[in-house]
Amino acid sequence: MSELRLNLITREWVIIATDRARRPDEFAAQRRKQKPPDAAGCPFCPGGEELTPDEIMRIEGEEGWQLRVVPNKFATLSGDGSHEQYRDGRNHSMDGYGRHEVVIETPRHDCYIAHMQQDEVIRLLRAYKTRFDILYQDADIEHVIIFKNHGEAAGTSLQHPHSQIIALPMTPMQVCDRLDAYRRYADEHGECLMCATLADELAAACRIVLESEYFVTFIPYAALSPFHIWIFPRRHSVSFGDISGDELRDLARHMQHVLAKLYAGLDNPSFNYVIRSESPRASATEYFHWYISLVPRLSQPAGFELGSGMYINASIPEESAEFLRHVEV
Amino acid sequence: MSELRLNLITREWVIIATDRARRPDEFAAQRRKQKPPDAAGCPFCPGGEELTPDEIMRIEGEEGWQLRVVPNKFATLSGDGSHEQYRDGRNHSMDGYGRHEVVIETPRHDCYIAHMQQDEVIRLLRAYKTRFDILYQDADIEHVIIFKNHGEAAGTSLQHPHSQIIALPMTPMQVCDRLDAYRRYADEHGECLMCATLADELAAACRIVLESEYFVTFIPYAALSPFHIWIFPRRHSVSFGDISGDELRDLARHMQHVLAKLYAGLDNPSFNYVIRSESPRASATEYFHWYISLVPRLSQPAGFELGSGMYINASIPEESAEFLRHVEV
Repeated sequence: MSELRLNLITREWVIIATDRARRPDEFAAQRRKQKPPDAAGCPFCPGGEELTPDEIMRIEGEEGWQLRVVPNKFATLSGDGSHEQYRDGRNHSMDGYGRHEVVIETPRHDCYIAHMQQDEVIRLLRAYKTRFDILYQDADIEHVIIFKNHGEAAGTSLQHPHSQIIALPMTPMQVCDRLDAYRRYADEHGECLMCATLADELAAACRIVLESEYFVTFIPYAALSPFHIWIFPRRHSVSFGDISGDELRDLARHMQHVLAKLYAGLDNPSFNYVIRSESPRASATEYFHWYISLVPRLSQPAGFELGSGMYINASIPEESAEFLRHVEV
Repeated sequence: MSELRLNLITREWVIIATDRARRPDEFAAQRRKQKPPDAAGCPFCPGGEELTPDEIMRIEGEEGWQLRVVPNKFATLSGDGSHEQYRDGRNHSMDGYGRHEVVIETPRHDCYIAHMQQDEVIRLLRAYKTRFDILYQDADIEHVIIFKNHGEAAGTSLQHPHSQIIALPMTPMQVCDRLDAYRRYADEHGECLMCATLADELAAACRIVLESEYFVTFIPYAALSPFHIWIFPRRHSVSFGDISGDELRDLARHMQHVLAKLYAGLDNPSFNYVIRSESPRASATEYFHWYISLVPRLSQPAGFELGSGMYINASIPEESAEFLRHVEV
């Protein structure tokens, strides 16, 4: 069982991953780490099913499974233990209650979203939604984060396409703080900040990468890093769980389109993406609007970012958007 | 001139480094980047003085300079331009007014702080303090960040030991938000949160790495990442600029000691450190207490951290502290 500890000074919860903790001396050796497994030894390829913990979900196709969801073998949170909070003076902790799942996106070892069939991307997004809805049915889960790490610079050494889902027993402080600010914005201006931002971006047009009936993909005005991309639903909605069938198909098109442009235009960069969404049972329905944040890992946050929370972006958002608009896919 | 833009949704300022911006297509090629220069072509070695912009400060020794401070050749901020704020609807920006300096710590290409003479570390810290004090004399500078990036994983490709100083025309939002929280804590509890944390750590003892007359080096209770280290002055003080001569000598001992332990125990890991300090003219004197945060780059923040602001730490703070206590240096 891992442990969550609150860092009062940096103002955020930290998951101390006791179960997967390395011994201190292992950190010295880790930079000489082994190569990631090739398709032959891959735990996510067909034939490797016994290498993963017991399956949570499977989508079958004509020639075997097409997508699987399994618990993360090195889960940072688990269903064991209570969700009580402990206090020892100022030290504040919780059991590592929650869920940590892996979505194996395809049976094909090297088929990235950029190169999938449209139907496969739709299937992946549907699987996200299914797990998202189910995880939130647990009243002890307060916040669910769906994300993907692609490439070593984005924090994964497993090549086989996979996403992850972490279900937390509390809402991260960063999320709470931002919601507070969005509420204040809406109180003052009478509109959701995301709706307003979307209207601004559509009017400015110069940072748009793709727009369609239900979604708009753009580089934010103050992008935190080169090719930092946001995918916003046009319809104001607090939760990804509320996405309609038509919207989901349109979102699949955006995801694939923009990832294909990054692959072709930037030579398959490492990237992370995350769905920033509130719970389907959220009360913040007026002033928060879910979206996807996609971050190619083309620069390394360093001491300045660590000490300020600010970012230095060595690219110009308008130029990056124009570049992506012209990448043929 | 670079441009600062406010990201309303992530709630932080971003420096769009126009002057050093790369063309979009350069990002594709950057992963095939050239090797860092060896000592022969190093702009920071003696003989390379003409490769750096005009010197701001120099400390001479018997055999030439011992330390130099120069403007960063790829400065993200400069002394040109105004510090006016511009608003275009919701888009909020400023000229990139400020300073970006490089401290060349030693003439020796491969002499890390871990291996310096004590006097050299004292000289380095004195240079930090000199520049810190001088930069804050500009009334248009609101926040000064002194930091160091060591190793490629920490965001530098230049081996020659150097630190950086960035002087900003505004206070980062993260800093403001944390100060607000510290003020609320002090209002409620009648004491500075850092003083209280230091007392807790000294009482618990299990996370202490080194304590002496003026400073305490420890791994925080909720360390954000493996071997995340804080160096706290015992004396409550809002600003690094207020450090006394005796304190500075003691701090040099802590810096060198802990960096030597990391070098020996973890095989010269990449790391960042940053001095978290308020202005010498700060009014927050009651509830903020300056400190140094040192982060070895042994893990890669990925999609989860991006989407939550939380961290997963695959090490146990008490074990890491015990390990470091036993590393002989």
